[in-house]
Amino acid sequence: MSETEISTLGEFGLIDRLTRDFTPSQPSTVVGVGDDCAVLRHSDMETLVTTDLLLEGIHFDLTYTPLRHLGYKAIVVNLSDVVAMNGTPRQVTVSVGVSKRFTVEHLDELYAGIRLACKHYDVDLVGGDTSASVTGLIISVTCVGDAPRGTVVRRNGARDTDLICVSGDLGAAYMGLQLLERERKVAAEVQDEQFEPDFAGKEYIIERQLKPEARIDVLDELRQVGITPTAMIDVSDGLSSELLHICKASGVGCRVYEDRIPIDYQTALMAEELNMNLVTAAMNGGEDYELLFTVPLVQHELVQQLKTARLIGRITKPELGAVLETRDGNEISIKAQGWNAFTAGNMSN
Amino acid sequence: MSETEISTLGEFGLIDRLTRDFTPSQPSTVVGVGDDCAVLRHSDMETLVTTDLLLEGIHFDLTYTPLRHLGYKAIVVNLSDVVAMNGTPRQVTVSVGVSKRFTVEHLDELYAGIRLACKHYDVDLVGGDTSASVTGLIISVTCVGDAPRGTVVRRNGARDTDLICVSGDLGAAYMGLQLLERERKVAAEVQDEQFEPDFAGKEYIIERQLKPEARIDVLDELRQVGITPTAMIDVSDGLSSELLHICKASGVGCRVYEDRIPIDYQTALMAEELNMNLVTAAMNGGEDYELLFTVPLVQHELVQQLKTARLIGRITKPELGAVLETRDGNEISIKAQGWNAFTAGNMSN
Repeated sequence: MSETEISTLGEFGLIDRLTRDFTPSQPSTVVGVGDDCAVLRHSDMETLVTTDLLLEGIHFDLTYTPLRHLGYKAIVVNLSDVVAMNGTPRQVTVSVGVSKRFTVEHLDELYAGIRLACKHYDVDLVGGDTSASVTGLIISVTCVGDAPRGTVVRRNGARDTDLICVSGDLGAAYMGLQLLERERKVAAEVQDEQFEPDFAGKEYIIERQLKPEARIDVLDELRQVGITPTAMIDVSDGLSSELLHICKASGVGCRVYEDRIPIDYQTALMAEELNMNLVTAAMNGGEDYELLFTVPLVQHELVQQLKTARLIGRITKPELGAVLETRDGNEISIKAQGWNAFTAGNMSN
Repeated sequence: MSETEISTLGEFGLIDRLTRDFTPSQPSTVVGVGDDCAVLRHSDMETLVTTDLLLEGIHFDLTYTPLRHLGYKAIVVNLSDVVAMNGTPRQVTVSVGVSKRFTVEHLDELYAGIRLACKHYDVDLVGGDTSASVTGLIISVTCVGDAPRGTVVRRNGARDTDLICVSGDLGAAYMGLQLLERERKVAAEVQDEQFEPDFAGKEYIIERQLKPEARIDVLDELRQVGITPTAMIDVSDGLSSELLHICKASGVGCRVYEDRIPIDYQTALMAEELNMNLVTAAMNGGEDYELLFTVPLVQHELVQQLKTARLIGRITKPELGAVLETRDGNEISIKAQGWNAFTAGNMSN
């Protein structure tokens, strides 16, 4: 790979190069990259806006995160927030800060991943900012979406007796991270440039960590089946944390059943191998980007039809608190032990 | 000032504390801080989106930038982009990354400035992200605004014979930066904690650097007088750079007259004192956040009425290039030497 210093292109040259292959395709994009602002037209729709900051050394480690995957993931985690409001992602802006150790080719890789995500989810890149940084890679993404008026699903609509559902499976991204961290340490000890970690049989958990997806397909199925969730949130900080967000915003309690929590067998095997508690990983691991939502009890039969999500518990009166019922019938109070950017590492115990 | 470690609050506690005094007042804000996304309703309007990344050590130096001013400026530079499209800023999201040397009280100061700007310009804080960073302070702001359909003014509408106007005066923010940098070096050499730089008689250029404003008042006057600019841009990277953006986007040339460029006397005195070229500072200094716009020749008399802006030149055929006509009648080709985050420091020669 050739190495071109970013300063040789200058800021505007760099922006031209990075954004030239992005062609807006959304009818709501009136003006994309290249002016003081993007101009969007969300007629008769509600506009959704969300933003995330991804920092090297805090949110990602480039020793095992390919830049292309990082670009893809940076977009997906933002789309996921729009999806969690029952909206459709339409546009993104991407700002990057890069230190001197990054070349133009590195940014080409990052933007290849961004482009792949934009194409896959049919969203337009409409703006951003590029800058040098003193240390490390900084990525800030803002996603704009829309939803027909009155269809947005917030966190505050869950009511007593509602059913609690979650899509996909949980804990895999977290176990993938543990595996990648272990291999990084092994590689550092071996000090062999040729060292290649063996991820055979563990592809799923690695992919869940490095290349998560936003569950637009779940929204599609919910509409098809005829379910409108009363509350919804995406699982970014861990199931426990998200359940508590819904309970707090809705003023309710919840009861979740341990044996209902969806876990992939690769996640279970990895927890076994690393001698870690599987339920803790599934409840508090985070970065699953699955959808957690509540449905009125009367729609119980519709919930049974869902292929992308399953029932894991029910909403209760607030005085009952947030409770996990274990396989052996015990009750454990649910506490947020999710990933916290200010105390990173608290999950490792 | 007491010192509270950020980790004692946790991410959600911190967000609660920082955003509690922000109450949405815009009718278009349906849902503000506290869900997966902000929900906005820009009925029949075009939605404008712009974003900027501000990095410590690249865009600002905290040895002479009070955090309160920095918060204010971080908002203003984004509002300015919406204003430059002839739009009205309505909402902002603010993401911050902070290293361990920052306390909760530091962030309180930053957000006090953000709150002041939001109040002054009547925009709502509707979201954001907070995170630890490995080093330094990182601020990413996205601003959302709106404009009635068909009223957005882009960079590409300038036509041959149009008049070129600019608001306020130029070069002051740059000379303010030079002064602050000089005093920083003096303070470092003196090594006296009690050292207080003397800014008497230089308040204006200091304020232009530390507390710029977005020129919504210029838009108001343009509407009042009956002028709709054919092209507009805000002066963030320097007049030369912005003129070239308009020329490139519109496919035209320009001729600007040196003796027409508005310069405050404090700017001129400072350039004299520092033995720097005044016109270079005014043409290439940047961070003025004034509005540069073009007006059809037939509105010449309306332009004369403007109090907030003045005529500095005219648009020409593309083959004539971008030219500065000096006081002594010479022609200088305008080149972008504006501030570049990738080669910062290139202005000091």
